[in-house]
Amino acid sequence: MSVTAASGFVAAGVHAGIRRSGPDLAIVRSTTPAVGAAVWTTNRILAAPVVLSKANLDTAEPQAVVVNAGVANAATGERGLADAARTAEEAAAALGLEPAEIVVLSTGVIGVPLPMERVLAGVQQAAASLTADGGPAAAAAIVTTDRWPKQAVVQGDGFAVGGMAKGAGMIHPRLATMLAVVTTDYPLAAGEPIAFLRPAVDESFNRISVDGECSTNDAVVLLANGASGVERTPARDEQFAAGLHDVCAALAREIVADGEGSTVLLEIAVEGAASDLEAEAVARRIATSPLVKTAAFGRDPNWGRVLAAAGSAPWNGGFAHVDVERLTVAFDGTAVFVRGEPTGVAPELGGSSVAIELDLGLGSGSAAYLASDLTYDYVKLNAEYTT
Amino acid sequence: MSVTAASGFVAAGVHAGIRRSGPDLAIVRSTTPAVGAAVWTTNRILAAPVVLSKANLDTAEPQAVVVNAGVANAATGERGLADAARTAEEAAAALGLEPAEIVVLSTGVIGVPLPMERVLAGVQQAAASLTADGGPAAAAAIVTTDRWPKQAVVQGDGFAVGGMAKGAGMIHPRLATMLAVVTTDYPLAAGEPIAFLRPAVDESFNRISVDGECSTNDAVVLLANGASGVERTPARDEQFAAGLHDVCAALAREIVADGEGSTVLLEIAVEGAASDLEAEAVARRIATSPLVKTAAFGRDPNWGRVLAAAGSAPWNGGFAHVDVERLTVAFDGTAVFVRGEPTGVAPELGGSSVAIELDLGLGSGSAAYLASDLTYDYVKLNAEYTT
Repeated sequence: MSVTAASGFVAAGVHAGIRRSGPDLAIVRSTTPAVGAAVWTTNRILAAPVVLSKANLDTAEPQAVVVNAGVANAATGERGLADAARTAEEAAAALGLEPAEIVVLSTGVIGVPLPMERVLAGVQQAAASLTADGGPAAAAAIVTTDRWPKQAVVQGDGFAVGGMAKGAGMIHPRLATMLAVVTTDYPLAAGEPIAFLRPAVDESFNRISVDGECSTNDAVVLLANGASGVERTPARDEQFAAGLHDVCAALAREIVADGEGSTVLLEIAVEGAASDLEAEAVARRIATSPLVKTAAFGRDPNWGRVLAAAGSAPWNGGFAHVDVERLTVAFDGTAVFVRGEPTGVAPELGGSSVAIELDLGLGSGSAAYLASDLTYDYVKLNAEYTT
Repeated sequence: MSVTAASGFVAAGVHAGIRRSGPDLAIVRSTTPAVGAAVWTTNRILAAPVVLSKANLDTAEPQAVVVNAGVANAATGERGLADAARTAEEAAAALGLEPAEIVVLSTGVIGVPLPMERVLAGVQQAAASLTADGGPAAAAAIVTTDRWPKQAVVQGDGFAVGGMAKGAGMIHPRLATMLAVVTTDYPLAAGEPIAFLRPAVDESFNRISVDGECSTNDAVVLLANGASGVERTPARDEQFAAGLHDVCAALAREIVADGEGSTVLLEIAVEGAASDLEAEAVARRIATSPLVKTAAFGRDPNWGRVLAAAGSAPWNGGFAHVDVERLTVAFDGTAVFVRGEPTGVAPELGGSSVAIELDLGLGSGSAAYLASDLTYDYVKLNAEYTT
């Protein structure tokens, strides 16, 4: 069950009144001493809760995460920092923890102060209603423009990994992109969580793009409390690493599938690049191309736009290596362009996903990327509402 | 009058039938021996006419430019290269020039072969109807999704600079972005045109963004025939350089104002950056942010999105230096965020342009950028039609 699937985790989601309606404040906590880590946005402008929580993680192991939706508490100056600290203090007091053991996350409008009376009352209410089956309620309380809550669970051999996420807009790699809380009862020692979390994030949340944006707030937090009591073995370590990756990948996929206004999931695969990093640059460029994304919305197998994007993938101060005479492009397995020549075939694109596959014919580098299409509703959501 | 404002230039635009309707083939030529240069797309995938014309410019001074709209002749393999060469040969024969003296430019759909019978007949027809007041007709014949032809003229002390351009979609720096032909009767020696053209392009066409795309075809071509007969002086050289810049800047502004589906022109100015290049990176990131551009469509002074974009401007493998506590943001002259604190003021954005001004408070680097907004019509144009 979501972020409370692993033993020894409780959660709650409540309506604090930060958003006009619906739940908007969640707490996830470990009931036994946990260790943890987080990967943060790389934006140069950090929201107040990010500044606070990074400092907290430097001084203590995280035991609980407080998340509010509706107001991002970003670009809010000194007041914002004080509000984030006050939130952590209130949660610590209510949960019997130290303020430094609290991770505070916020998502929503930038530049608006938190309505602190409501936030603090919400923290009290959520702290009082934490349960072992509160995961789904917590997942529902962290959404903003999401159409559905995002949850994932992997059961290992005697342990579990569970998580929740919110996304939709401002989704783009270098993390910097969304909010996720992942918990496990697998036993990790202090200092270990980041070594497992970093590669899992690099291969999941850092390989998705809704609109190429990179927010001031986003974070992936991992708490590990060892409550499963299983013995560590190399095989189980590997299983845990794979499970953590799978939970991150499942949440990342949900985020793209629920990209703001999206109607189709683009599965972009690049192989034959000079290196994995160049493959990633090409895949990212295609994943963020407005022309590719609008063509996808129109279900147009417009490989010309894919080529133009592939040829202009920022790399090392210039563009990644692409040679049109070695390049092959396929849509949903049907080749449309083979080593410099169009095949004349135009596949029908009908389903809820479209595979865009490139073989650059240059080397053995490869990368995969997920992206959403660019639609009227993306424009509508972002032009008509302050989000 | 457009690209024929300078002495000794003639032009024509005809309907060759490459597009369903409207003029779609233009020729511009110098009637006296000219020198010239071009700045080309930096896309790794070059359209056939770009491959041909780059080679031509390496071997001869350009005397005429043939432009077709409707089909880009990009990603068309060996056939595309042969078609571009055939076009140059036909034009050379009709004009009494060598094939290497012809610059061929194409714009339109990628991956479709040119209808060569129509192209060659169009070349003949245009070559037979060249006149000194044919500039506007030529400008009208190079448009694709443009809503209006783009022309600009600057009169110097005894000479003139005139130009035409097409743009609208796939507009983004590193040139790589649009089509422009600029002519002058100012006397330049062989080898000199590029020294004047490069800085003019860097400060104009390379500082605009409609959708962040970078095409396979785009080019800025300069022809200089010296037909004015004016004497060169250092003062006139400066005046010519300024005139060339102004023509390029005017054409670039027209291109953004006519950005696909756009309703407002964003004038982005960044100052106080650690360097000019970092200022440009920040300005470009704001100019290409879908969230900033959709907010602009909604006339929402959403400085939070501007901040998030400014904080994530790709630079030197990371992000450009931005410190929120030194950062000031204004919309149309009204400060909305001053050194880390929101001012609480929300200016009304009403006009046909919006100024977004940032002072990073870090140094003396500055840069300006023009961008269009992101609208329903951009999505409509690019989802419903293969362009």
